[in-house]
Amino acid sequence: MANAIVINPFEVPKGQEEEALAVWDRFAAYFKEQPGYVSAKLHRSIDPNARFHLVTVAEWASADHFAAALQNTELQLIAREAKHDFPNFPGLYEVIRDG
Amino acid sequence: MANAIVINPFEVPKGQEEEALAVWDRFAAYFKEQPGYVSAKLHRSIDPNARFHLVTVAEWASADHFAAALQNTELQLIAREAKHDFPNFPGLYEVIRDG
Repeated sequence: MANAIVINPFEVPKGQEEEALAVWDRFAAYFKEQPGYVSAKLHRSIDPNARFHLVTVAEWASADHFAAALQNTELQLIAREAKHDFPNFPGLYEVIRDG
Repeated sequence: MANAIVINPFEVPKGQEEEALAVWDRFAAYFKEQPGYVSAKLHRSIDPNARFHLVTVAEWASADHFAAALQNTELQLIAREAKHDFPNFPGLYEVIRDG
């Protein structure tokens, strides 16, 4: 089965990039230790007025691996707070065009 | 200078994926012929209820190359219509975390 791609665009209120990056780094450190983690890239918009200032594109061995990694109570609490401070829209994706 | 990444998440109303893909393919065929185009991937969400059903992640040699490619009157008309049918939020990005 093909790897699962996690894409998550974040809205970051002006002046709060540092806080958003601190949350991101905390998640990244945790995810990297989980089974099935492959890689993650964080993209920052060049235009400060972009709707989504930060966008994660990560790769997992499977959707199940990612779902299992999310089963962590402490992480879920941080995620709930981050969702409020930095509205974000995570989803699992497959690549359907590549060229 | 590092390549510029274009990320564009699309909202696709239920039942309209085929129309969205037709528009995407038309843009892709045009972009591929433009100077500075490097590559493009189209991601489709596995969950049908994801906020963004389609997400483009494309690479261009520079932001200027991408801006130049957008200077096409016919394309701009199609883009305006697509913006209405499939709300989307294109932005230029740089990679700030990679691991």
